[in-house]
Amino acid sequence: MFDSANLDHRIDKAKYLKEAPKLREALLNAQYDLKENGKFPVLILIAGVEGAGKGETVNLLNEWMDPRHIAANAFPAPSDEEIERPPLWRYWRALPPRGKIGVFFGAWHTLPVVQRVQGVIGESEFSQQIGEILRFEKMLCDEGVLLLKYWFHLSKPQQKKRLKALEKDSRTRWRVTDIEWEYFKLYNRFVKVSEPFLRKTSTGEAPWIVVPGADPRYRTLTFGRHLLAAMRERLDQKPVKNVPDKTPPLLAEADNLNVLRALPLDQTMTKDQYEKQLEKWQGRLNSLSRDPGFKSISVVSVFEGNDAAGKGGAIRRVTSAIDARRYNNVSVAAPTEEERAQPYLWRFWRHIPRRGRFTFFDRSWYGRVLVERVERFCSEADWMRAYTEINDFEQALTKHGVVVLKFWLAIGKDEQFKRFKAREQIAFKRFKITEEDWRNRKSWDAYERAVCDMVDRTSTSIAPWTMVEANNKYHARIKVLKTMCRGVAEALERVAKAGRAKKGKKRGG
Amino acid sequence: MFDSANLDHRIDKAKYLKEAPKLREALLNAQYDLKENGKFPVLILIAGVEGAGKGETVNLLNEWMDPRHIAANAFPAPSDEEIERPPLWRYWRALPPRGKIGVFFGAWHTLPVVQRVQGVIGESEFSQQIGEILRFEKMLCDEGVLLLKYWFHLSKPQQKKRLKALEKDSRTRWRVTDIEWEYFKLYNRFVKVSEPFLRKTSTGEAPWIVVPGADPRYRTLTFGRHLLAAMRERLDQKPVKNVPDKTPPLLAEADNLNVLRALPLDQTMTKDQYEKQLEKWQGRLNSLSRDPGFKSISVVSVFEGNDAAGKGGAIRRVTSAIDARRYNNVSVAAPTEEERAQPYLWRFWRHIPRRGRFTFFDRSWYGRVLVERVERFCSEADWMRAYTEINDFEQALTKHGVVVLKFWLAIGKDEQFKRFKAREQIAFKRFKITEEDWRNRKSWDAYERAVCDMVDRTSTSIAPWTMVEANNKYHARIKVLKTMCRGVAEALERVAKAGRAKKGKKRGG
Repeated sequence: MFDSANLDHRIDKAKYLKEAPKLREALLNAQYDLKENGKFPVLILIAGVEGAGKGETVNLLNEWMDPRHIAANAFPAPSDEEIERPPLWRYWRALPPRGKIGVFFGAWHTLPVVQRVQGVIGESEFSQQIGEILRFEKMLCDEGVLLLKYWFHLSKPQQKKRLKALEKDSRTRWRVTDIEWEYFKLYNRFVKVSEPFLRKTSTGEAPWIVVPGADPRYRTLTFGRHLLAAMRERLDQKPVKNVPDKTPPLLAEADNLNVLRALPLDQTMTKDQYEKQLEKWQGRLNSLSRDPGFKSISVVSVFEGNDAAGKGGAIRRVTSAIDARRYNNVSVAAPTEEERAQPYLWRFWRHIPRRGRFTFFDRSWYGRVLVERVERFCSEADWMRAYTEINDFEQALTKHGVVVLKFWLAIGKDEQFKRFKAREQIAFKRFKITEEDWRNRKSWDAYERAVCDMVDRTSTSIAPWTMVEANNKYHARIKVLKTMCRGVAEALERVAKAGRAKKGKKRGG
Repeated sequence: MFDSANLDHRIDKAKYLKEAPKLREALLNAQYDLKENGKFPVLILIAGVEGAGKGETVNLLNEWMDPRHIAANAFPAPSDEEIERPPLWRYWRALPPRGKIGVFFGAWHTLPVVQRVQGVIGESEFSQQIGEILRFEKMLCDEGVLLLKYWFHLSKPQQKKRLKALEKDSRTRWRVTDIEWEYFKLYNRFVKVSEPFLRKTSTGEAPWIVVPGADPRYRTLTFGRHLLAAMRERLDQKPVKNVPDKTPPLLAEADNLNVLRALPLDQTMTKDQYEKQLEKWQGRLNSLSRDPGFKSISVVSVFEGNDAAGKGGAIRRVTSAIDARRYNNVSVAAPTEEERAQPYLWRFWRHIPRRGRFTFFDRSWYGRVLVERVERFCSEADWMRAYTEINDFEQALTKHGVVVLKFWLAIGKDEQFKRFKAREQIAFKRFKITEEDWRNRKSWDAYERAVCDMVDRTSTSIAPWTMVEANNKYHARIKVLKTMCRGVAEALERVAKAGRAKKGKKRGG
């Protein structure tokens, strides 16, 4: 994979001085065309060996392009803010919006390679991380990101020469510390790890581009020209091709039974019973949220359900049990302009809480497989791949110790009619019923289909759906509270167990 | 993921008798339309829990459809033929061609799940296999296969009931042995493993379809209708959609140096030197091929190069050193009709040798990124993804102990001209020079670009390219022989080492 890059490529000064200004102008033009076009973002990953000109390339981009429409991000040791969220969070928050260029310097590729070189992780864990990278990058490409992955390379003699030269020059001596020489000793091992890494994370849509890094002029011209060609290709292309839609249909039941119809919607609970239960479970939730172990976890809870099923009311019964400084409510409506310029899940990632906190989503990322599917706001291919992307997203959360609790509040069609009518009668509730609600109601069957598919495809051991029979609001609220208490209690138990195991180890050793 | 399937779905006999004949007719029509259309194959995977009707479903398909255009394959313990090739080989050889339906009963999904349930493999190895499955299935979908993955499910009580019923009936008692009851004991663990497996191997293009298996009539109707809908959707669709081409360009050198131009083509070797060397290295290769350890390995060798670079001559110098019963020559020209009806790599998989054998490819799977790219026989997206698919293919080979040796025989443009002219002069060589050769020569630069990209993207630690300077045929042949000897010797050394390690272990235990 490094065959070309190991050659002694070179560009003389005269040629460079002739070519560079032209390239610079063309790149600037491409940047403005991208801004004008506004249809896709460009994400440039910069990775590779020490001393191969990664930093210089980032500086070059900042210098050559309009700084208002390019943002370079380095990813050193994560901040407090970052460490309390899943590892991907820091990359999501830095993604460039459509029309702009983002430069990521040492992103999600760095850690797996470095940890493998140092022997911190084994071959299998390495494979697992490669799988996650592939899925994440596939999602980015499917969302239209022009993902350009550059790997700056030096041969071993080139790297040695480069480090020596930096050391010799008093202006650059600071850049070569013992760490750099330590890395140099690991050169062979680094190449041995990164070669299969590059091979396995290269795809047709997002191949690694290996840039020879030894000669700065050569490096600048090849890199710049490639970036230009890649941007121009996407900017200038006519997006018409004969491509079959490859998504097969999902299963349709042959009888009238499905996960919604199987629910006994009419549960009974009197006001008296409810008030007793409410006090009990709110008290329980409150004490769980004040458990010392809660500092290590966080809770992300999703409320979905039929219109007028009582999502808001259920959320309020939960939040009133919790210290207001410990939770956030996120009400999901149509995306903002800023959100529309990003991959679909961006607007949910931004709300992922720090440790020790709750976030309640009134509607959520499931919009894509519910309303966007039914109302055809997105293509079938888009909502079909969303099941996988959502499962990956929730796995990233749970893997980081986030408790994911998902509720579907279900009411019957008659009950909904009654509630709509009632809302229209009561002045202070009238804002809660709109034309859209009546329109959605007409698509009742299509929504039912979408909900059943959603449950089948995203109710998983890591993040199961809780189906809440909600014709009786009291029953629904108590079921939500109970489930939430159980979820949090189980997570606290895991934390306590891990703590005991750690302590035991310390004592043992 | 099993939420719907755990419900007690049921279809009464009257409804079934009314619906089934209609469905059967519609499926048969779809089968004929598929044959007529001839543009894609249908591959149906049947998997899931014991007793959920997998076998019955395969029987049903055989009964309902025209047996001439459907082929069902079960994959029990692999045969001798199969065990000596990489595990994927048995699936490749059974793939249905375009226009036909293939049914795979327990294919590549079975082993990872079973081995994980039994604890034979750990979580990380399991992840690794999931990654390989995803890549393999992506390739199938990219190649146009309509891949339908059905998972037949029973809840635990349903499975128990089913086994008891089979046991009770004297006609089916034979189907329930101790093994089935052993599996039943593992039910919870099986579901715990298969749920994340299904989640992680579901994609937008190839989602798992979970079929409730308890009620035979219900199962038949839901499965049959889904199959029908999936086939009809692909058959009836208009393949026009606005899809941007998402493949970025590859790197272009900014100077005149590349892996081909860096080669010192004019090596010297006299006839005398050559004959001595030839004897030496042919003798060495012969003795290596008769080494007892050679029974555990096989060699797949690829010869690519410029027209008239001497591929045939080099191959002959190798084969004349080997017992004729130990090798096969595969000369790759335009694909046959049968080969065109299959995914691209099919025609190479079919020639993968058993253990203890050599296969020499005169031209190879690299055609896709060479001639097919340059002559635009395939789309950019096709040859771009081919790099990944080829690397995966070669990894599957090397992982199974196949030694992959790849030679690029390079001659200069002038040398080629001389050889073309010479061939035209000599009567018995005239067949070797055609209009096409002269035409290809006009695309010299495009081929050079394609070769450099090929080397950069597919010269890997598992299967590196050997660049052979071939202006001097003697030099070229000796370099090929030497490299081949080294490759085989290294593989034999690995085998011997593994043997010693095994012996040591036995002694130790």
